[in-house]
Amino acid sequence: MNQNLQKLRTAALNAGVDAYIIFNTDPHSCEYVPDDYLVIKQLCGFTGDNATVVVTQDFAGLWTDSRFYISGTQELKDSGVALMKSTESTFLAWLKSNLNKGGVVAFDGRCTTASVYFDIKKKLDPLGVVLNEKLDLSSSFWHNRPKPKISPVYALDVKFTGVSTPDKIDAIVTKIKAENADRLLTSDLAEIAWILNLRGSDISYCPVFKAFMLIGSDASAVLFTDNQRFDDSVAEYLKQTGVVVCDYDLVYAALSGLPEGSSLIVDINSANAELYLSVNKQCKIIERRSPVQLMKAQKNETELSNIRRTMIIDGVAMERFFYWLENQLNNNIQVTEIDAANKLLEYRTMGEGFISESFECISAFNQHAAMPHFAPSKSNNLLLQKDGVYLVDSGGQYYTGTTDLTRVIPTGEFTQDFSIDYTLVLKAMVDIAMAIFPDKANGCSIDAIGRVSLWRYGKDFGHGTGHGVGFCLNVHEGPVSISPGSTKTTFLPGMVTSDEPGIYIEGKYGIRIENLLAVQKSEYEGFNRFETLTLCHIDTRAVDTKLLNRDEIEFINNYNKRVYNTLSPFLSQNENEYLKKRTAAI
Amino acid sequence: MNQNLQKLRTAALNAGVDAYIIFNTDPHSCEYVPDDYLVIKQLCGFTGDNATVVVTQDFAGLWTDSRFYISGTQELKDSGVALMKSTESTFLAWLKSNLNKGGVVAFDGRCTTASVYFDIKKKLDPLGVVLNEKLDLSSSFWHNRPKPKISPVYALDVKFTGVSTPDKIDAIVTKIKAENADRLLTSDLAEIAWILNLRGSDISYCPVFKAFMLIGSDASAVLFTDNQRFDDSVAEYLKQTGVVVCDYDLVYAALSGLPEGSSLIVDINSANAELYLSVNKQCKIIERRSPVQLMKAQKNETELSNIRRTMIIDGVAMERFFYWLENQLNNNIQVTEIDAANKLLEYRTMGEGFISESFECISAFNQHAAMPHFAPSKSNNLLLQKDGVYLVDSGGQYYTGTTDLTRVIPTGEFTQDFSIDYTLVLKAMVDIAMAIFPDKANGCSIDAIGRVSLWRYGKDFGHGTGHGVGFCLNVHEGPVSISPGSTKTTFLPGMVTSDEPGIYIEGKYGIRIENLLAVQKSEYEGFNRFETLTLCHIDTRAVDTKLLNRDEIEFINNYNKRVYNTLSPFLSQNENEYLKKRTAAI
Repeated sequence: MNQNLQKLRTAALNAGVDAYIIFNTDPHSCEYVPDDYLVIKQLCGFTGDNATVVVTQDFAGLWTDSRFYISGTQELKDSGVALMKSTESTFLAWLKSNLNKGGVVAFDGRCTTASVYFDIKKKLDPLGVVLNEKLDLSSSFWHNRPKPKISPVYALDVKFTGVSTPDKIDAIVTKIKAENADRLLTSDLAEIAWILNLRGSDISYCPVFKAFMLIGSDASAVLFTDNQRFDDSVAEYLKQTGVVVCDYDLVYAALSGLPEGSSLIVDINSANAELYLSVNKQCKIIERRSPVQLMKAQKNETELSNIRRTMIIDGVAMERFFYWLENQLNNNIQVTEIDAANKLLEYRTMGEGFISESFECISAFNQHAAMPHFAPSKSNNLLLQKDGVYLVDSGGQYYTGTTDLTRVIPTGEFTQDFSIDYTLVLKAMVDIAMAIFPDKANGCSIDAIGRVSLWRYGKDFGHGTGHGVGFCLNVHEGPVSISPGSTKTTFLPGMVTSDEPGIYIEGKYGIRIENLLAVQKSEYEGFNRFETLTLCHIDTRAVDTKLLNRDEIEFINNYNKRVYNTLSPFLSQNENEYLKKRTAAI
Repeated sequence: MNQNLQKLRTAALNAGVDAYIIFNTDPHSCEYVPDDYLVIKQLCGFTGDNATVVVTQDFAGLWTDSRFYISGTQELKDSGVALMKSTESTFLAWLKSNLNKGGVVAFDGRCTTASVYFDIKKKLDPLGVVLNEKLDLSSSFWHNRPKPKISPVYALDVKFTGVSTPDKIDAIVTKIKAENADRLLTSDLAEIAWILNLRGSDISYCPVFKAFMLIGSDASAVLFTDNQRFDDSVAEYLKQTGVVVCDYDLVYAALSGLPEGSSLIVDINSANAELYLSVNKQCKIIERRSPVQLMKAQKNETELSNIRRTMIIDGVAMERFFYWLENQLNNNIQVTEIDAANKLLEYRTMGEGFISESFECISAFNQHAAMPHFAPSKSNNLLLQKDGVYLVDSGGQYYTGTTDLTRVIPTGEFTQDFSIDYTLVLKAMVDIAMAIFPDKANGCSIDAIGRVSLWRYGKDFGHGTGHGVGFCLNVHEGPVSISPGSTKTTFLPGMVTSDEPGIYIEGKYGIRIENLLAVQKSEYEGFNRFETLTLCHIDTRAVDTKLLNRDEIEFINNYNKRVYNTLSPFLSQNENEYLKKRTAAI
């Protein structure tokens, strides 16, 4: 019997609520939901990152996607909550079929976006269902809810960021005026950190801090956050920059107090529903993608040269790790997936400016690597063995940039199938890295340039080929992506994207090779190309050169040579000998 | 002084109309507008195929696209009608800015689609402008308007079409029932010809006849067309098939007389506005893409084997033409672009089952070929000369299929630039023809597979890479296309598409190489590939093999060998010797 579910039902009954919805989201739509917003995990033990729960007096269901059908079924056993497959139904369709006129649906409007709220309203309004979007019932069953993390905040010098906060605010003001608006609201933590050149550690893997921000067309800036987190220097910096600091929760009151007749830009895909609904009804809301998104995505020259330096620091950690790993295996010293991930983190931690990992390390042997999002845990931690395949997808947050790379190495002998698949993935990765493309090209076109080599052999993979990457911010950053569905945004100079095709053979192995690329103008008018940023050798032992053309082979040899030449000054003699061998031309 | 414009203005004044719109469209949205609907040409002499005219008492403007800015300015000189660039404004924006509340805007609702009508209404309704969509003022200035062409209609045997009309109607009934509808309206002439296995010649280049059709969920079928066009055999065929024939113009009355409460599927992108507005207001209109479109696009095995036979007939005409052309040039006999087009038509006309060209032949030398849509005219007809480049893009309508191909030949020496561009275009064409792709792949992905080779050298072209092709129907057929914007439809087995990348160097030459391809299942589960249908050798004299990989060279050699082996039994000894030389392996 699930006591928590029982308590929630009682609370719902007392509040006159027929159906209560819980989203797995925090007020800022963070990719990594902070502990104090893991309401669903608290209710029923489910840990997947895609989840929406609906609870009524006689039903409780959790909708999630196929990645979590197996683990979710185990976790939800005995929870009283049924696993609902999002491929078969949606929570909204369920509500439509199971609610009557006058029924009351409630949820915490801070924990879902305005855009999702509109979807719910559009579907349920015609049924005469009543929405209460201001009800948080989680306290009924979550008594020891963690306190929100209020981390110290520090400034990133303009030698890292390239542009000062006043200059960024000026650029935003231009965009606000272009929309004939009076103000911009942003609740995206990466946007706020970018604007203010400040970083924190409220959220795992992304150096940001919880805040909201209002910027006026007169360049006024109000920051809603916990004031106590600032030391004197940051407080002084904010003061000198003209940023007024208010309490975090005051943002809702501030929005309702906006001057009558004024206008406000809101990004409904990132702003939470309560923010949107708090805005003074006498204001005009202009729904737009936040103009900060595109500014932040186009890295300036200072950021790019910092990223290039970061790639050396990160690459040195990677090469030292691979050298260590090869020695362990050669000497028959046992290494588990977790051991390997820990060792890599140890080497990264020694790097200048290292802050944290940029996401949970995917350290995966053989069949584990066939699951693209696998991360080892105590109960699911393979020993690396001879004649297998090891995949490591990891990255770091540095004051000077964010890294993300994937490499695959054979731990001994390998099959011909593996050799073909490895070569095809490498070919796809290299073909995108070498591509020249019109400055209007979309992510779908770039995606096909890579996938076509796999398709030729009837192979494909189920994830995108690339995602944008922030500067000492989110490792997954909008708006661009390289994927078949990415037809709306184009690749502008300075944008950083990953390039990570893969092939996954269930129960056997997974291959993904990933570098970060920066968009650069090409030598041809109207065409752009990529600069490869990541610096870590690509293992060529399994490469079948018959599947590659001259340009691809030349690219791989030049790349490995560049890796050796750039990193070797920072490596020991032994490490250098190892890297020399591994970067020999094919 | 333009008398026609004067008369139109008087008629508008008398009718109380402030702004009169003329669309360059007929009631069926035919790609080739029949003569009796060329109202704009009659009014002001403009001949481009993209045109919308707005006339008020003190303004007359014609909106068109960049293809017609130069020719249009010449044609409209002294017409009293100003050329308006669609890149700078739209007729709708103009109307919005220049009309006041209570102003009356009129047009002939038969000559624009329901979807365009909704756009107009959406923009002008909020201004309080009154719409009159039932006013045809063309008779005020067009006294000798041609009578509508009423061509005889003939049946295509099921040995050509593969599926009988009753079976097609049954399949449509299934789709009607799937939408819970009572009836389907279609006004698309190719759909009607396809359903009925009938062909006519009302429209240039497409063997169809003017008609509307209503199909009921009870398999009832009413055809609205001129009855006198049917001979006894066709009349009997229709009777036996259970198709009731009514007068062409009765469709509007029939729609207003539909039973109250019944429902009708209408494709607002092909149905004209008056059709839509005629439907009984007590009926439910279900706006959907016509289900016939996708059925017609997926050719059955009978159609495909007929198309393969047609490609031999068409290929023989092409090879005889190229042999003739080379001889003329070698013997210094003068050949103009029109001479060449005429000769090619002469050879095609000898082919079994030939009906007509499938579009106006693009026979273009040097700088003329740099204009992708050029067609020679008496006043613009170059002589083919030594050391130039000749492009021919043409096709035929046959009872057994529709063809469309483009070839480029050097008429002597050529530059290295030409050689590189020719090879890159060929490489792009071949890479698409060889591609294997997931059955969910969209046209944007396929497009990139071709373009990437051009992009690599900073080159590109401004048109799509491919369009669907009908079976003895439209040479441009929906719904699929290969282009960067084509992200909605997927390539299903049996679909036929063109594959025609190009490079255009203004003032010098144009290169486009085009084959038709059919989608086939590949040897890999979940993946499709293309079968090349077109049979006509690809000139390899200008090919720079250094720019091609082994697979591409092998594809070209195999293709030319297949062309020779398939066509040579139908060619003379001299023609065979010529073709043998031109298809020698590279």
